[in-house]
Amino acid sequence: MSPDAPRPMDIVFHPKSIAIIGASATSQETGWVATLRNFGYTGHIYPINPKVTEIGGLKAYPTVRDIPDTLDYAVFNIPARLAPQIMEDCVAKGVKVVHIYAAGFSETGKEEAKELEARLAATAKAGGVRVIGPNCMGIYCPASGLTFSPDFPREQGNVAFVSQSGAEAMRFIFLADGVGIRFSKVISYGNAVDLDAHDFLEYLADDTETEIIACYTEGVGDGRRYLEAIRKCLKVKPVVILKAGLTESGAGAAVSHTASLAGSKAIWDAFFKQTGAIPVNTMDDISDVILALLHMSYPKGRRVAMVGRGGGIGVIAADICERAGLKVPPFHPDTMSQLEKIIPEAGAGVRNPVETTYGMGGAAEFYAKGLSMVDADPETDFIIIQLAVDVYGGRQSDLSQQVSKAAEALCETVPTLTKPVAVAIYTGGHTHTIDAVLEARQKLLKAGIPVYTGVEAASKAVSKLIRYREMAEKR
Amino acid sequence: MSPDAPRPMDIVFHPKSIAIIGASATSQETGWVATLRNFGYTGHIYPINPKVTEIGGLKAYPTVRDIPDTLDYAVFNIPARLAPQIMEDCVAKGVKVVHIYAAGFSETGKEEAKELEARLAATAKAGGVRVIGPNCMGIYCPASGLTFSPDFPREQGNVAFVSQSGAEAMRFIFLADGVGIRFSKVISYGNAVDLDAHDFLEYLADDTETEIIACYTEGVGDGRRYLEAIRKCLKVKPVVILKAGLTESGAGAAVSHTASLAGSKAIWDAFFKQTGAIPVNTMDDISDVILALLHMSYPKGRRVAMVGRGGGIGVIAADICERAGLKVPPFHPDTMSQLEKIIPEAGAGVRNPVETTYGMGGAAEFYAKGLSMVDADPETDFIIIQLAVDVYGGRQSDLSQQVSKAAEALCETVPTLTKPVAVAIYTGGHTHTIDAVLEARQKLLKAGIPVYTGVEAASKAVSKLIRYREMAEKR
Repeated sequence: MSPDAPRPMDIVFHPKSIAIIGASATSQETGWVATLRNFGYTGHIYPINPKVTEIGGLKAYPTVRDIPDTLDYAVFNIPARLAPQIMEDCVAKGVKVVHIYAAGFSETGKEEAKELEARLAATAKAGGVRVIGPNCMGIYCPASGLTFSPDFPREQGNVAFVSQSGAEAMRFIFLADGVGIRFSKVISYGNAVDLDAHDFLEYLADDTETEIIACYTEGVGDGRRYLEAIRKCLKVKPVVILKAGLTESGAGAAVSHTASLAGSKAIWDAFFKQTGAIPVNTMDDISDVILALLHMSYPKGRRVAMVGRGGGIGVIAADICERAGLKVPPFHPDTMSQLEKIIPEAGAGVRNPVETTYGMGGAAEFYAKGLSMVDADPETDFIIIQLAVDVYGGRQSDLSQQVSKAAEALCETVPTLTKPVAVAIYTGGHTHTIDAVLEARQKLLKAGIPVYTGVEAASKAVSKLIRYREMAEKR
Repeated sequence: MSPDAPRPMDIVFHPKSIAIIGASATSQETGWVATLRNFGYTGHIYPINPKVTEIGGLKAYPTVRDIPDTLDYAVFNIPARLAPQIMEDCVAKGVKVVHIYAAGFSETGKEEAKELEARLAATAKAGGVRVIGPNCMGIYCPASGLTFSPDFPREQGNVAFVSQSGAEAMRFIFLADGVGIRFSKVISYGNAVDLDAHDFLEYLADDTETEIIACYTEGVGDGRRYLEAIRKCLKVKPVVILKAGLTESGAGAAVSHTASLAGSKAIWDAFFKQTGAIPVNTMDDISDVILALLHMSYPKGRRVAMVGRGGGIGVIAADICERAGLKVPPFHPDTMSQLEKIIPEAGAGVRNPVETTYGMGGAAEFYAKGLSMVDADPETDFIIIQLAVDVYGGRQSDLSQQVSKAAEALCETVPTLTKPVAVAIYTGGHTHTIDAVLEARQKLLKAGIPVYTGVEAASKAVSKLIRYREMAEKR
C-alpha cells in the first residue's frame, strides 16, 4: 500500500456521513447533532429518532435503515439495553464504524452487562462493523470537524492522544489548550470491545499529521500487539504514556473504572526501559513533556545552567534538578568573570545558579545582557530560567509590570540563544499577581518558549526529553 | 529558672529600643525606620546617621555612643567594611543584640571577607554583644512589631520559622500568608557568626507562643547542638525541616549562598529517621505540612477515603496516594450500598474513590448527603475530597458559581464529620476559572479546612502528619 493510499482506519477520523442514534429532540442546541454542526463537521448528519421528523432543521429517521444514502459512522447515544437491536440495524445498513457512547456495559462489573457487551461485539464482528467503545467519548479530530465537546479548539495540531478514559481525554484537551497544545486526533476508546489502543497506535505511527503521541492507559487487552504498536510509533515519533493503576490502590480503582487488569509494576517498568516510551504519572506531566518535545531542541547532556534567583531558591532548585536526574555544575571560570561584570553585587552568586538581581525589577535587563554569556558556557548543556514572582508576595505595586517586562525580554532574547531553554514561573496563590503570571506564561508560550509552573516540573520534563533522545539514539 | 522568668533570648524578639545604623535620609518612607514605625514597633527607635540631625521626625545620632539612653538592639544597615568600627561602638554602648543585615562577608568566599567576619565576631564576643547574621534579614515578630518588610501580616500566629536564608524567610512568610498561616517568630540568621539555628530552636522549644516550628537549613555549624535542640523541640511540638543542599548540585549552590557545608545525605537521612523531624523538599511542602498540622486531627491509619471524581482521575489519585505511603482500599460493602442509594449512576464508582457525580454541578448536593456515609466507613481512616475543576476546562458558564456552592457545602458539612479531612482543588491554568478556585480555597481555609493544590500535595502532607504522630508515640 502506498503511503498516500486511503487506509481502512481513515474512516474513523474522516467519515463522510454520521448518524446520531438517539438524537435528542429536546436538547437541540446542546446535543450531538448541534455540537457536530456548530463545530464545523461538513459531512451529512442524520438524526435518528423515531418520535420526531426533524431535529435542528435536519430530517430525522426512525432507524439507520431508513436513511436513503450510504452511512459511514454511527453514534450510539442510547441506553445500553437498546444497543443490540441498533447494532443489527447498523449491520443491515452497512455502517462502517460505530461509536458506542453509552455506558452500562462490562465496566459495571455486572454479569448481564458483560454478556450484553459480548453479544454486541459478536454482532458487529460478524457484520463487519468496527466499534469504538462502549463507554467512551469517541473521536476528536479538528481537521474533519469530529468532536465530543463544542468547547474544544478548532485549530488542528500535531499531537495525538489515545485515552482509555473519556473524562481524562476531555480533561487533557482543556489542560493542553491552556498551554497552547493542539491536536491532530484524540481518541477515547473505553471498553474497547473491538478497536483497541494498539489499533489507534498503529494508525498514528504512520499518520503524517501526528508528530507526538500521548496515551492514558489503565489496562491493555492484547499486550503483545500494544508493545509492537508502541515500538512502531517510537521508530518515528515520541510516545508519552500515563500508565494508571500501577499501585495496588490504583489497580483496584482501575477495575472499577474500565474493568481493566492493570498489570504488574515490574512488567511495566521493563516495558518502559525496553521501549523508550516516556513514562509519566499525571496529566500535567504529559502536558509538561509535550511542551519540551514541541519547543526545545535536544540538550546535548544533563547539565543545567540555572538562571533566575540564587540564594535559597537556587539551592532548592539545584536539589530538585539533581533529583530529576540532572546536574547543576559550576560555570566555567570565564563565564563567571563575564557575569561578574554585569552583576557585581551577586558575589558568589555567579557560580550557577546565577543570582540575577535582587527583585524582579532587574530581571529583564539581565536577560538582555546575561543570557548570551550563560549560553556560551562550555560546562552546561541547557538553560532553566526561573521567575520567582512569589518572593515578595506580589506586594510591590509594579510587580505585574515587571513580570510583563521580564517575559517580553525573554521573548526577544531566547530565540537568539543556541542552547535549549525552559522557563519556570511559579504562580503562587496570590490573587493580586496571578493574572500577571498567567499572562506572562501565555506570552512566552506564544513565542514558542516552554513554560512550567516551577523548577520541579521543568526539570522533570527536560530530563524525560533527554532520556527519550538517549533511547532513540540507541535504536 | 521558672517558666515565666525572662530569658536572655527574649531581648532578641522584644527589644525595648532599636538603633538603625545607616538609617537612610533619602528613603525616609521605605527604610528600616519607617518600616518599624509603620509596622507598630512601640519601643524607641534611634536613627544613626552622621550626616543628618533628624529622620522621619526622629532625632538622628552620629553614632550609637551618642544615644542618651540605654540601647537593646542595633541593626547594621551599612557596607561590610564599616562593620568593625560600628561593632566597637556597640560594645562601648553596651548594646545587647546586633542584627548585621549587611552582606559581603564569608558567603562571598573571599579571604578578606572571611577575616572581616571573624574579626567582627571576636569583637562582639569579647564585648558581650549577641549577633544575628551577618548576611540576613533578622527578626519578624508581630507581637513586638519587629519586622523586615512592611508588607508582612500584623496578626500573630503560632508558627515559628527559622531560616538560614533571608529570601526564603521572606518568600515563606508571603507564601504562608496566602493560605492563612500566621507566625509567632521568624528568624533569618544568615552566616551565624554567633546566634545559630540551635540557639533559636532551644528558645522556641520553650516558647509558649510557638506550637509548630519550621526550618530552612543549608548547613549546620554545631551538629551536636542542632540535633539536641531539634530533639528538645520534638518532645513538645512538631518540627518541619527543609534541608537544602542534599544533592551534589544543591551542596555546591549552598556553598555559594551561605558558605555552608551541606553535610552528607546519609547523615541527614539518619537524622530524620532518628528524630522524627518532618523532612520536606520545597517551601510549598512546608506550608502543606503546616496546614495539616494546624487543621487536621491525626488520622488513625493510612487508609484514604477518596471523594470527588472517580474514573481516570480516581485511578491516578489512588496511585499518587499509594506512592505517598497511603492506601485507597475498597469501602466496606455497607458503605457502598449506602452510596449507591444516592448516586445510582456511579455504578462501580462507589467502591473508593467515590465518583460523586458527573460535573461540578452535583458536588454540593453529594457533600451534604454522602460525606457522612463515607465518614462512617470502617475501612478508611481519613478523607481526601477532590474538586477537579479542570475537567471541563472551566467552560461552563456557571462553573464559578458551582465551585462556590461546593465550597460552601464543604464548610457546612466537614465540621460535622468525625474523621480528618483534606481538600484538593486543582487550580488549572485557565484565567476564567482561577479566581473562583482561589476564592473557594480562601473560604475553606477560613473555615479551618486544609486545602491543597492537588491530591499529590494533600497525600504527601497527610502522610507526613501520620508519620510524625507515629514517631511521637514511640517517644
